[in-house]
Parts: sequence; C-alpha cells; structure tokens
Amino acid sequence: MTETWLPSLQTPTPEAGYALAIKLSRMAVKMTQPDDAIRQELRAIYERNAAMLVAISAVVATNFQTVAAANNYWKDK
Amino acid sequence: MTETWLPSLQTPTPEAGYALAIKLSRMAVKMTQPDDAIRQELRAIYERNAAMLVAISAVVATNFQTVAAANNYWKDK
Amino acid sequence: MTETWLPSLQTPTPEAGYALAIKLSRMAVKMTQPDDAIRQELRAIYERNAAMLVAISAVVATNFQTVAAANNYWKDK
Amino acid sequence: MTETWLPSLQTPTPEAGYALAIKLSRMAVKMTQPDDAIRQELRAIYERNAAMLVAISAVVATNFQTVAAANNYWKDK
Amino acid sequence: MTETWLPSLQTPTPEAGYALAIKLSRMAVKMTQPDDAIRQELRAIYERNAAMLVAISAVVATNFQTVAAANNYWKDK
Amino acid sequence: MTETWLPSLQTPTPEAGYALAIKLSRMAVKMTQPDDAIRQELRAIYERNAAMLVAISAVVATNFQTVAAANNYWKDK
Repeated sequence: MTETWLPSLQTPTPEAGYALAIKLSRMAVKMTQPDDAIRQELRAIYERNAAMLVAISAVVATNFQTVAAANNYWKDK
Repeated sequence: MTETWLPSLQTPTPEAGYALAIKLSRMAVKMTQPDDAIRQELRAIYERNAAMLVAISAVVATNFQTVAAANNYWKDK
Repeated sequence: MTETWLPSLQTPTPEAGYALAIKLSRMAVKMTQPDDAIRQELRAIYERNAAMLVAISAVVATNFQTVAAANNYWKDK
Repeated sequence: MTETWLPSLQTPTPEAGYALAIKLSRMAVKMTQPDDAIRQELRAIYERNAAMLVAISAVVATNFQTVAAANNYWKDK
Repeated sequence: MTETWLPSLQTPTPEAGYALAIKLSRMAVKMTQPDDAIRQELRAIYERNAAMLVAISAVVATNFQTVAAANNYWKDK
Repeated sequence: MTETWLPSLQTPTPEAGYALAIKLSRMAVKMTQPDDAIRQELRAIYERNAAMLVAISAVVATNFQTVAAANNYWKDK
C-alpha cells in the first residue's frame, strides 16, 4: 500500500461517510488476515450467517459514529 | 442506488431518529449481503431467535447514539 | 402507533431516564419482531438465560448513555 | 420501589462511580428478571463462567463511561 | 479494601492510562467473582481461548476510552 | 518493556491512527497472554475464523474512536 487508503475522515455526504465506515470495518479484517483467497472463503460463510451479519453491522455502527463525529454530523450541508 | 438513501442525519423528531437508526443498522447487512432472497431467508431465522434480536437491538442503540447526537438530542423541539 | 412512543429524550430524573433506556432497548426488538405472541415465547427463553440477560444489560447501558447525555446527566437537578 | 434507586449520577469519588456502574449493570437484569430466586440460580452459573464474567465487565465499562462523564471524570477532586 | 483502588482517572502517561484501563476491566470480574481460587481457574481457561482474549480486549478498549477522555488524551504532554 | 510502547495518542495521519488502534487492540491480548508461542497458536485459529475476525474489527473500531478523538479527527490536516 504505497498510497494511503485513508487520506481523511471527512466526506462530502453522510452516505459517503457510511461507505467509509464500511471500509474501516473491513480494513481491520484485511490487516489481520491479508490473504485474499482465505478472506474470500470466509466471506462465503459470513454472508449467509445471520449472527455474523448483525455483528458486522455493529462494527459499521461504531465506525460510523467516528466518521459522523469527524464531519460534525454533516450539519452544515 | 442512484438517489441517496441517507440524505441527512437530521430528523424532525426523536421517533424519526430512531427509525433512521434502524435503517442504518439494516443497511450494513444489505451492503454485505445484497441478495434480497437470501436476506429474506436469514430474516426468518433471526426474527425468532432471542439472542439475535438482542444483538440487533445493540446495533440500533449504537446507531441511535449517532443520530441523537447529530440532532443535539432534539433539545430544542 | 398513531401517537408517538418517543416524544422526547428528556426525563425529569435519572431513574426515569433509565426506564426510557429500557424502553428504547425493547423497541428495536418489537420493530424487528412485531408479533406479540412470538415475543412472549422468546421472553420465556431469555429471561432464564444468564448470557442473554447480560446482553440485554449491555443494550440498556448503550441506550442509557444516550439518554443521560440528552439530559446533561441531570446535573442541574 | 417507592424510593428511587438512582437519585443521581454524581458520586463523590471514582470508586463510588464504579460501584454505581455495577449497580446500573445489575438493574437491567433485575428489571428483565424480577424473580430473586431465578436470578440467584443464574448467578451461580455466570460467576463461574469466564465468557460471562468478561461480558459483565463489558457492561460495567459502558456504564462507567456514562457515570465518569456525568462527574466530569472527577477532575476537580 | 480499606484503601481506595481507584483514587483517580488521571494518569501521567498514555501507557499508565492503558494499564488503568486493564485494571478497571479486571475489577468488574473481581467484584462479580471475589473468590481468588475460582478466578485463577477461569484465567487458565480464557488465557488460552482466542475468542475470550478478543472479548477482553474489547472491554479494555471501552475502559481506555474513558481514561483517555479523562486525561484529555494526554494532549498537553 | 523499558521503553514505552505508547508514547502518545497523536499521530500525523488518519492511517497512522488506524495502525495505532490495531496496536492498542493487540496489546490487551498480549498483556493477558504474554507467552508469544501460545499467542502464535491462537492466531492460527482466529485468522481463519470469520466470527473472530469480525470481533477483532469491533475492538479496532472502539480503539480507533479514541485515537480519532485524540487527534480531533485530523481536521486540520
């Protein structure tokens, strides 16, 4: 990763902020398990597992708190 | 999704804010598992599973924190 | 629900705030599983399950954070 | 409960604040399962279960965040 | 405990703050299971269990949020 | 550890802040299980377990909240 994958927490819109929250959530997984093929296998598991999908949503919610605060909740938009 | 699904975190009332928190909680699931038919099947599982319903409530609580802060807790209403 | 179930996050006392946090925690379950009879069955399960009671307490704690912040921690009472 | 069990979130010391966080964590369990005898049985389970003790510690941590913020982290003590 | 185990949330350094977060995380376990011998047995379990170690790390993270905020993130150091 | 492993929560960039959040998440595991060989074995387990990878991502998200707040969300960069 020569370029930065996270240049800023600021986003133009709430929707872009939510997309960034998802990216942040996935990056921790990627950094713990860098092998693309293994992550692909695991994805096949968790994308059909209700409990894991809810757990993923919890991580996104925590990261979205951070991104939303970083953008002052896009109040001025 | 040509239109934005998240135009703003501001809502007119606390109740509308809670509804938005539920929407935010579901969107992470939808983005991880975009297939409507599979999500329908999974829904049949988690909506009768006490542990999963509590886990869902946890995600909504986290997202509601974000929405409530974005609205300054609707103090001026 | 013609009347709002959540007119405000402001409560007169910390104890009333805690009661509201419990209401917020239950509402996400109710909105995901609207069938009263099924929820009744599930209740019989989780109210005798230590792990689920702790998980419920975690959700209430998160919602109480929100309600307490909304009331400025009832510092002026 | 004719008297309030939660008159205030303010405590004289951090240690008293931590004790209040534990009380808040237990109260959600008590309100969900009001039967003392059943809670006693469940206690015998979770107090010897490592995973549940950690889960309890997580709830206390969340409630302690609230109490600590309510006391401005006892900075002036 | 005649002396207080938690005289203050202020620490001289971030590292000392992290150590305090660990102490806070363990104290809830100790207060729920005061028997040293039982806790010793449980420790033998969770210190070799990946899921529990991650769960412990989650509790420490929550407590570290509190301690870091109490110290204004040691910005002035 | 004669040198401090955590000299500051301030980082030059968001990406460096995220790396610090991962370090904070691992440190609690290391302090609970200091034996490198055992941690290596456990790593082989959790890096192929979808649920654990998600749980790890949750811890990183919580720690990233702390680091991001400590850096005022890198708004001035």
